[in-house]
Amino acid sequence: MGLRTADEFKESLRDGRRVYIYGERVEDVTTHPILKISVNTAAGDFVLTHMEDPEIRDLFVVSHPETGEPMSRYFEPPRTPDDLEKRLRMIGTSIRVTGGLPFGKDIGTDAMYAIMAMAERMGKPEYLERARTYLEYLRKNDLNLCGAITDVKGDRGKTPAMQTHPDYYVHVVDQNKDGIIVKGAKIHITGAPVANDILVLPTRQMRDNEAEYAVAFAVPANASGISFICRPGRGERGPAEFPLGAPVRDLVEAMIVFDNVFVPWERVFMCGEWPLSMMLAYTFATYHRFTAVSYKIPIVEVLAGCAVAMADMNGIERAGHVRAKLVEIAAYVETLKALATAAIKSPVMHGEIAVPSPLITNMAKLHFASHYHEIIELIQDIAGGIITTMPTHLDWQNPEIHDYLEHYLSGSPRFTTEERLRMASLTHRMASSAESAHMEVTTVHGEGSMEAQRMMIYLESPLKEYRDLALAAAGIEPRG
Amino acid sequence: MGLRTADEFKESLRDGRRVYIYGERVEDVTTHPILKISVNTAAGDFVLTHMEDPEIRDLFVVSHPETGEPMSRYFEPPRTPDDLEKRLRMIGTSIRVTGGLPFGKDIGTDAMYAIMAMAERMGKPEYLERARTYLEYLRKNDLNLCGAITDVKGDRGKTPAMQTHPDYYVHVVDQNKDGIIVKGAKIHITGAPVANDILVLPTRQMRDNEAEYAVAFAVPANASGISFICRPGRGERGPAEFPLGAPVRDLVEAMIVFDNVFVPWERVFMCGEWPLSMMLAYTFATYHRFTAVSYKIPIVEVLAGCAVAMADMNGIERAGHVRAKLVEIAAYVETLKALATAAIKSPVMHGEIAVPSPLITNMAKLHFASHYHEIIELIQDIAGGIITTMPTHLDWQNPEIHDYLEHYLSGSPRFTTEERLRMASLTHRMASSAESAHMEVTTVHGEGSMEAQRMMIYLESPLKEYRDLALAAAGIEPRG
Amino acid sequence: MGLRTADEFKESLRDGRRVYIYGERVEDVTTHPILKISVNTAAGDFVLTHMEDPEIRDLFVVSHPETGEPMSRYFEPPRTPDDLEKRLRMIGTSIRVTGGLPFGKDIGTDAMYAIMAMAERMGKPEYLERARTYLEYLRKNDLNLCGAITDVKGDRGKTPAMQTHPDYYVHVVDQNKDGIIVKGAKIHITGAPVANDILVLPTRQMRDNEAEYAVAFAVPANASGISFICRPGRGERGPAEFPLGAPVRDLVEAMIVFDNVFVPWERVFMCGEWPLSMMLAYTFATYHRFTAVSYKIPIVEVLAGCAVAMADMNGIERAGHVRAKLVEIAAYVETLKALATAAIKSPVMHGEIAVPSPLITNMAKLHFASHYHEIIELIQDIAGGIITTMPTHLDWQNPEIHDYLEHYLSGSPRFTTEERLRMASLTHRMASSAESAHMEVTTVHGEGSMEAQRMMIYLESPLKEYRDLALAAAGIEPRG
Amino acid sequence: MGLRTADEFKESLRDGRRVYIYGERVEDVTTHPILKISVNTAAGDFVLTHMEDPEIRDLFVVSHPETGEPMSRYFEPPRTPDDLEKRLRMIGTSIRVTGGLPFGKDIGTDAMYAIMAMAERMGKPEYLERARTYLEYLRKNDLNLCGAITDVKGDRGKTPAMQTHPDYYVHVVDQNKDGIIVKGAKIHITGAPVANDILVLPTRQMRDNEAEYAVAFAVPANASGISFICRPGRGERGPAEFPLGAPVRDLVEAMIVFDNVFVPWERVFMCGEWPLSMMLAYTFATYHRFTAVSYKIPIVEVLAGCAVAMADMNGIERAGHVRAKLVEIAAYVETLKALATAAIKSPVMHGEIAVPSPLITNMAKLHFASHYHEIIELIQDIAGGIITTMPTHLDWQNPEIHDYLEHYLSGSPRFTTEERLRMASLTHRMASSAESAHMEVTTVHGEGSMEAQRMMIYLESPLKEYRDLALAAAGIEPRG
Repeated sequence: MGLRTADEFKESLRDGRRVYIYGERVEDVTTHPILKISVNTAAGDFVLTHMEDPEIRDLFVVSHPETGEPMSRYFEPPRTPDDLEKRLRMIGTSIRVTGGLPFGKDIGTDAMYAIMAMAERMGKPEYLERARTYLEYLRKNDLNLCGAITDVKGDRGKTPAMQTHPDYYVHVVDQNKDGIIVKGAKIHITGAPVANDILVLPTRQMRDNEAEYAVAFAVPANASGISFICRPGRGERGPAEFPLGAPVRDLVEAMIVFDNVFVPWERVFMCGEWPLSMMLAYTFATYHRFTAVSYKIPIVEVLAGCAVAMADMNGIERAGHVRAKLVEIAAYVETLKALATAAIKSPVMHGEIAVPSPLITNMAKLHFASHYHEIIELIQDIAGGIITTMPTHLDWQNPEIHDYLEHYLSGSPRFTTEERLRMASLTHRMASSAESAHMEVTTVHGEGSMEAQRMMIYLESPLKEYRDLALAAAGIEPRG
Repeated sequence: MGLRTADEFKESLRDGRRVYIYGERVEDVTTHPILKISVNTAAGDFVLTHMEDPEIRDLFVVSHPETGEPMSRYFEPPRTPDDLEKRLRMIGTSIRVTGGLPFGKDIGTDAMYAIMAMAERMGKPEYLERARTYLEYLRKNDLNLCGAITDVKGDRGKTPAMQTHPDYYVHVVDQNKDGIIVKGAKIHITGAPVANDILVLPTRQMRDNEAEYAVAFAVPANASGISFICRPGRGERGPAEFPLGAPVRDLVEAMIVFDNVFVPWERVFMCGEWPLSMMLAYTFATYHRFTAVSYKIPIVEVLAGCAVAMADMNGIERAGHVRAKLVEIAAYVETLKALATAAIKSPVMHGEIAVPSPLITNMAKLHFASHYHEIIELIQDIAGGIITTMPTHLDWQNPEIHDYLEHYLSGSPRFTTEERLRMASLTHRMASSAESAHMEVTTVHGEGSMEAQRMMIYLESPLKEYRDLALAAAGIEPRG
Repeated sequence: MGLRTADEFKESLRDGRRVYIYGERVEDVTTHPILKISVNTAAGDFVLTHMEDPEIRDLFVVSHPETGEPMSRYFEPPRTPDDLEKRLRMIGTSIRVTGGLPFGKDIGTDAMYAIMAMAERMGKPEYLERARTYLEYLRKNDLNLCGAITDVKGDRGKTPAMQTHPDYYVHVVDQNKDGIIVKGAKIHITGAPVANDILVLPTRQMRDNEAEYAVAFAVPANASGISFICRPGRGERGPAEFPLGAPVRDLVEAMIVFDNVFVPWERVFMCGEWPLSMMLAYTFATYHRFTAVSYKIPIVEVLAGCAVAMADMNGIERAGHVRAKLVEIAAYVETLKALATAAIKSPVMHGEIAVPSPLITNMAKLHFASHYHEIIELIQDIAGGIITTMPTHLDWQNPEIHDYLEHYLSGSPRFTTEERLRMASLTHRMASSAESAHMEVTTVHGEGSMEAQRMMIYLESPLKEYRDLALAAAGIEPRG
Repeated sequence: MGLRTADEFKESLRDGRRVYIYGERVEDVTTHPILKISVNTAAGDFVLTHMEDPEIRDLFVVSHPETGEPMSRYFEPPRTPDDLEKRLRMIGTSIRVTGGLPFGKDIGTDAMYAIMAMAERMGKPEYLERARTYLEYLRKNDLNLCGAITDVKGDRGKTPAMQTHPDYYVHVVDQNKDGIIVKGAKIHITGAPVANDILVLPTRQMRDNEAEYAVAFAVPANASGISFICRPGRGERGPAEFPLGAPVRDLVEAMIVFDNVFVPWERVFMCGEWPLSMMLAYTFATYHRFTAVSYKIPIVEVLAGCAVAMADMNGIERAGHVRAKLVEIAAYVETLKALATAAIKSPVMHGEIAVPSPLITNMAKLHFASHYHEIIELIQDIAGGIITTMPTHLDWQNPEIHDYLEHYLSGSPRFTTEERLRMASLTHRMASSAESAHMEVTTVHGEGSMEAQRMMIYLESPLKEYRDLALAAAGIEPRG
């Protein structure tokens, strides 16, 4: 084993997990009309590892370091800039080929390697050993993982111990010789109901009276006491929309409730080491923002392409202000790519594990997030009102009015009316739909808010070095 | 007559008009599940003119200058800054009280008064007379109007005469002693299928070989040859959403096809006077952007309120960065209001008709549009991921999981969990839904693109005056 | 008396005041090569009140409310929007006609009216009486005032009482039946060495253990114990520069040291009322920011004019990106003017005294300051490198190279080479010189930093109102 | 020979060159009070090649590929990413160690390698041979070069052939068997009067009727017919300023007039090949912008340091808004560095010569330029008004007032008053002085305007690739 097929993966999700959507309990996520989209999206990863194209196979499949058996590259910790670059390309290729976000092994191993990077510092050798054993288990069973970090948080002005009840952050409520019992809820967990295992990490710095909140562990999705409450897709694409070039790919969002869930010790990776809670969250965040940049690159390339294509189809591609806007869009995309390149070039090492430069990775994520809405505005500007007022595909198919649409809704004669409407429909989806609005929010909050990225840039940037250069230039002795 | 009731208005829409939506012909717009929302929204204006609250009545109802009969204030041309301020308040109040955009008499009379402002310059006295007669007709029959300006345009790099067929801009195809025959299509016409009459204006400067495109006229919505092809609502609000404080208000977008439509001479307000086509579009644009500012003020006030309320409910209202963001939002809203105040104070007079300052009105619209996406980003930032990943109302009602939601999804103890979810739901609707995405595009393109506003600011701002001040300061003689 | 001549004003400055500049004590400010520029600049106000142009006279001179004698309009407290508009125009006209900032009676009466607006709340009737008596004294003697507010502050992370010595904020060190003794230093006081009287106000909220810092008073500039330490002009304009259309106008910056200065009780307007210290500073700030907006409008108009003129002279006025930049500049200027208009329309009344809307006034100042550097960048962009690399006037006058310059440095043939170089020289002064760099900093810090304006916008904007609108829209009961 | 000393370099400038400054002919640039600053600044390069520190020597000195003799690294064309990185570090180190811009061999070889990169395409083998011979000459004589590109341009709305006289762009006026005669003037040439040789390139695309303007050549600075007209330093630093940690380094700007200058054929590198004029300018621009980024990195690091140091000294380093501003500054600096890293990683090869990625290099320069004024604003904001109103060093030295300054002008007790004033003085110089204002303009215009960078980003970015990705996503066949 080591490389499951998409069908094996789907089969594994029929395991009695407790999933709710639209207020109803779902019997089988693989057949539910909305959840099956998520299943198919996540299954993309298992399709890729079986592709014959040698370039794709080389990117997604590696040999187990001991057994030599083929296994997913996600399960091999990155140790060099080259490994990081391969991971970047693997995630990007995943989107480009399957059309969907992976959001499974990628984010799961972001959490996994953060645990491994911190394990040695915990002062207990068993943590690293458990992590290695668990990684071996993932490799052998080729599991789809989800990383669950963000707690529901209650009053954001208060720490876990100050809240009106103790459950706003996942915490240990009991423990015995076999394991621990945990309670709480994690939220905004994309794709959670289609994972095999859940990897839970703390979301913030805990204090000395909050040791029970410093807890990290892995648990199967069908463990007793776990419920998933899903937020339906971002506006389903029905028959009204013009068909596009590929099937819809999407992942539901979920809240995961842990109602006194038992976790055996061999799956516990932190339990009470509160001084390291922040550092664990922080290392995860860097990995995860690097993953984010990796999958956002192909997305913003297509967004940019919508602008270029709509400019061509509207016949405005030579207008000065349109060119200026395309330059702004291109610089946005290419700066993101250049920052990813630079982040890879100067990784931080935790033991054998390479973490991409925390400074540049956070800058890349902040660049992406802080200019995203501007870029959307530019695309909407170039594309025109048509992307939101266009007739539906049902109108297009009605012979009573089809000819009107054909006659009136064309643009540049280099494209047919239908082509223009298909492109407008794609642009609608990516820049003016329920889905794009959802994307705006995940841009702001996914992988941590911009304030979180600013805090890490504050901590990681060489402010003191700059200061000492200035002191020297002013002829002043540097000091601490 | 003079003030119809909402029911009379609705009745008048059952007139055989040819309306399509989702590819199907609609028999009765007042009963169609989607279109009736538009009908009710437009009907709000007729509810307001019958309200007993004297403040509202004074704002919405005036006496006919000759007969003294009550009639809608929309049908009295503004002549003073005070009239403009009343119009501003009337439109704002309309949104505040009914929850919906009027988009009927307001935009219709934007077009009407643009026609009247230009009529005298046309060189034919009958134009002004026809306009006055038509205004009297509107007053008497209390009609709901729609202004149809934007043509489908084809290749934007080409003028009407250069296109691959002649129909990308509405034009006169024939004329006789009774009237004219017009052909073409107008697009992005909000609320068109629930208007009684359509007022058509040219959308751009025409050239000497394009005289047939310089045409303005009024026509009933059920005239032979007219079809409406609607874009369904912006993402209907179903039972999955948390209920809010008022019924949903919304207007469909429509394309209006004119398939050889006859217009009698008494309803023709421009026919061939191409040198004035731009000035007519331009005067309409100023009026219409002032209307836009009027209705956008109450909308952005509620948007700002979502940010304040979510900050309170999340318990982050005292964080420094949140305060800074609220200041930015408040300054955005209040600058819009201050610009409206200033635009009113210095109107341009066309005969007796007062047009709000074109310079400041365009600046106000550009201010609104050019910062809107930033403001949305700030609101998303403050509100949190919850606005897009929150469980549905159906989950809330399911007793199996209700207690989880109640327990885990509260924020500041000053509000209940349900209140927080209702506010998150409102914020979702206004800042991260299909509807808000649509609103982003209409912000960019509605009432003309930002480039159109920049062009008018270029033409209207005192650049030469500035230059002469600088020349004087440098001791240089001013020149032309 | 009541209206002194410029000569009388100059004579009054020869009063033994203790002024230092470039490390040397100045005997007579009216003859010192640098300080006389400040004297002439301040004297402009006395020139204006004697001008015969009736429009200017009406603006600058009013009748004493009791005696009917002519006196400066500055000494009549504004009571209506119309008074505020006159004050706005008076200050603007002052710059336009004399070419210099007034920075005397304007800022002095900003402080005076803040004192009067607060006097009634102090709980001691003598304060208001003293203020009125002092105002009468100013009227009779037509004094040039300076308002001294900003303390040197020491460690900005600490309040006055926490500092390493007690003198970082001006404070009362002793008092007796005749008056008080004060110590401390005020900084960044533009034009101070050419004022007749200094009006001192606290700069921040004081606490209960800081009552001695809550002190406001007036004192003559030559009082014993006062020293002025000046910062020389912003880069003097020597013979190397091309001559412009008017003499140089400028004001030195000064630090004022109060070394145990005696102030008689009749000139003390606050002494110990620490709870009102913030409100006094705050009311001054609003007045003063309104003054700032008043004089910045003519400055930014000339700045805008430099951009338009240089575009013309460089022959790029038709390029699309240049037009876009001019639009941005024009919108910046006109928004500032529109905000001033709106601030006047909704004043806050303190007794009889009208204070322009604190919310809109702070928005106007923040608008000015937060976009100023962008505007400078646009002007530099349009004007070209010539503004900083251009040959000097001395080169122009050298016949060996004059013809080279004449031949090579012209632009559009509509202007002579000399005209282009004069305009480049004005643009250099206003946008790329020591003076413009100084102006950038005073833009950021003059009249309080942008953070100070944001704080006032936070306090003054209707955030709670917005919130209640949103709560109502979500169907939630408003609460406190 | 091959590595001259600083003294040898200085001696070489006493060669009869015709230099004017402040309207006067300069006999000896090495002794003129202003020009000697430029001489010393340029001499820094010759100091560096003689330093014993092995790290510096390895960076600045290489062995001649044939003779093995030591020579300046500038004279070895970059062939690999590693060469480019060394060039980046060499230029940065030059600033860090000598405190001054090199602006000699760096910009000279930017021009040299652009010529070599284009030489093969010219269709005449002699061009490449001449370039190689000239490079050998530079190596042997260790010359200080200047690259002269920007013409005076006249009316920017017209091409060279459309102007009112033919001399607004340097052009060939005659030619014979020995060489060519050129006429015209180049402007904004930093450091020109202290170069040994001038390398001239065309500044734009020429047309078929403008072949005489497509000319590139090298000429000694003292050639007959050449005059330099200098713009004096950016505001000299006199005794009034607080002393800093290093001597002043600066370079004058100059206009170079070519009054019928003879150039022998062996120094002519383009003569009439107008179709390649743009490509030559373009390749130079990429090299030169890379050089710009190289020297701007250490400058912005010190600028950032001023902000950090002033925050510490003012005691505001813990304020939330100050941290946010420092994050913005740090992200600005580090993004510039990351883009340089990425530009090096993907060079374009012209034969053997590596040109850093034109796309990313232009993005880096645009990043630097388009945010520079914002960064200056942030630094001014953090530093406070003190940087522009502070007393002079002459005041500090006057015992009558020294104690006042010592007592009142300190900030955080961790630094002395004098240290704070020295730092304020450095910050003044870098962010609010004549020098910093000059730097703002060179930021906008140096190495080409931002519009020029946008044009290159437009041409170099993969817009078509993006478009084809979007077409594929919409199910549309890509087309040309």
